[in-house]
Amino acid sequence: MRPYNFSAGPAVLPEPVLAQAAAEMLDWHGSGMGVMEMSHRGREFISIYEQAEADLRSLLAVPAQFRILFMQGGGLGENAIVPLNLSRGGQVDVVVSGAWSQKSAAEARRYADVAVAASNETDGHTSLPAPASWQLRDGARYVHLCSNETIHGVEYQQLPDLAALGCSAPLVIDCSSHILSRPIDWQRVGLAFAGAQKNIGPAGLTLVIVREDLIGHALPVCPSAFDYKTVADNGSMFNTPPTYAIYIAGLVFQWLKAQGGVAAMEARNIAKAELLYGYLDRSGLYRNRVAPEGRSRMNVPFFLHDERLNDSFLAGAKERGLLQLKGHKSVGGMRASIYNAMPLDGVQALVAYLKDFAQRHG
Amino acid sequence: MRPYNFSAGPAVLPEPVLAQAAAEMLDWHGSGMGVMEMSHRGREFISIYEQAEADLRSLLAVPAQFRILFMQGGGLGENAIVPLNLSRGGQVDVVVSGAWSQKSAAEARRYADVAVAASNETDGHTSLPAPASWQLRDGARYVHLCSNETIHGVEYQQLPDLAALGCSAPLVIDCSSHILSRPIDWQRVGLAFAGAQKNIGPAGLTLVIVREDLIGHALPVCPSAFDYKTVADNGSMFNTPPTYAIYIAGLVFQWLKAQGGVAAMEARNIAKAELLYGYLDRSGLYRNRVAPEGRSRMNVPFFLHDERLNDSFLAGAKERGLLQLKGHKSVGGMRASIYNAMPLDGVQALVAYLKDFAQRHG
Repeated sequence: MRPYNFSAGPAVLPEPVLAQAAAEMLDWHGSGMGVMEMSHRGREFISIYEQAEADLRSLLAVPAQFRILFMQGGGLGENAIVPLNLSRGGQVDVVVSGAWSQKSAAEARRYADVAVAASNETDGHTSLPAPASWQLRDGARYVHLCSNETIHGVEYQQLPDLAALGCSAPLVIDCSSHILSRPIDWQRVGLAFAGAQKNIGPAGLTLVIVREDLIGHALPVCPSAFDYKTVADNGSMFNTPPTYAIYIAGLVFQWLKAQGGVAAMEARNIAKAELLYGYLDRSGLYRNRVAPEGRSRMNVPFFLHDERLNDSFLAGAKERGLLQLKGHKSVGGMRASIYNAMPLDGVQALVAYLKDFAQRHG
Repeated sequence: MRPYNFSAGPAVLPEPVLAQAAAEMLDWHGSGMGVMEMSHRGREFISIYEQAEADLRSLLAVPAQFRILFMQGGGLGENAIVPLNLSRGGQVDVVVSGAWSQKSAAEARRYADVAVAASNETDGHTSLPAPASWQLRDGARYVHLCSNETIHGVEYQQLPDLAALGCSAPLVIDCSSHILSRPIDWQRVGLAFAGAQKNIGPAGLTLVIVREDLIGHALPVCPSAFDYKTVADNGSMFNTPPTYAIYIAGLVFQWLKAQGGVAAMEARNIAKAELLYGYLDRSGLYRNRVAPEGRSRMNVPFFLHDERLNDSFLAGAKERGLLQLKGHKSVGGMRASIYNAMPLDGVQALVAYLKDFAQRHG
């Protein structure tokens, strides 16, 4: 059995996906080529691409008026690419709920008049900025929200209804670290982006799902390769797309469908999160600092009460086959990322180790 | 035996590289993780990254004052990223030798005062614009050259010495489709970039090798993720790099070293090119239109004298296991890309088929 890998990203992939990729490495479906060796314009790769796009559209119930773009540059790239495409040099409102949205606000300042609509910085990014408290400007071109903060473990359990808040701007969500772990309410979203390396698979692929009316307004300084209109008009093939990463993502989408789709994954993710948070809250030795309503189902930062035990905790975890549990350097402590590809068994094994470690050091 | 794949990119990879990648897919070196699942900040991936960088530096004899950056966005991305970083909004001179440098000139106009220093457009990009004829401006921030044009099959057999031409600007080369096929004279180069999907391997990785003094001058509108200084200061890990593509590139670098390095590859590439061009020139049925001094060792476009035979030619080639020979749509005819990973056997098999087809239709 493989160890359980709790990395925040790049992160664990489903074993059947990796096994299939290995089996097809030298010859995809009798084509005489591996996927990495195929022209992106050949019929073999086009079929892989179209299947991946159709499966993603079906899994997330993406409406017809949204385009799905396969891009490069990750979330930090999109922090510039979104304002280059959507801000028109005007106002952008950003909700700061953790390290990622803070970076988004800083980068957008290169291109737009940015205001922080709300922030949980004063409590160390452990609370959830409630939509009713957001200061939104009438002229905002869009409102940016990181719907799941990978580093601080803060997640919106439902997306805000900006219209109900009297705001007509589109909502942009950075959903990198929880895409496909739960449904997305597209009525409330104008654009969603996600680096693939957390809940999908290979680093170097960025998904952008964008409402058609938001395409075609890029600033003149926007590089063609990152102009949503150029990308959309060329079926994500203006520049050569990251073909192998798209193939792996497509295999993950097929695996998700075989598991029962996003609804089934959400049920599993709720069970995994309840198991882990439930134990952390009951234990005397561990602590998660995020307010319960804002706790992420995907990224669970936690601390040992006695931080002198951290190294011993990590060494023991590794011995048990529980990998990459060290917390992000800006937060410290531990972090368990329990994405779609992490089975319930893995969380059970983690909780068993947490209990055992607590008994030995309690 | 696998078919021979003449795709212009993404393109054939060495079989031992693919076999090793398949074998390590679920568990890299006993780590319990596949490479795609590793945190880019963990010691396992860092060791892969550092080895890849060191091997590339050694293979291409990159001097210490050049930084090697692993980026995203491909050549078309760099067409914007280079002027964003190097132009300072001033003058840029571009030598147009084919479709790719033409695109570079167009994109740079977003950021700089661009002039075409020379162009072979009038003869359909079949001649080599000789450096002595270039119109270079005193104030140019850099001179852009595509040292091998993938589509038109035009290659500079040696890089121009700008200083000898009385020009003090650094030379920027787009060497995407012939990197590692021959040495690079770094004394004549300020920056070299290459999309990996032609002569290295996986699409979605872009290599930038840049002299240190050219780093740190980005325009304010340059996205942080594409600012050479941000990338260099963070060891190519400001945003999550395309980790799996870097791993595959590293395996290709190791394979190249085992083959005898770039000098050995160059000798093989000369032999392959002489075999193919030699036959095309002697045959009555085929024709390469590029002036002999400008012919690419990597990309060989050719035409059947009777273009009504094109479909029949391609169908027969596929039956013989000779794949992806159709020419680029903007040029027509055929194109054989014979990168490092294409063995002499493959070119011999292609020439045998060319002869056989000529006999049947001569």
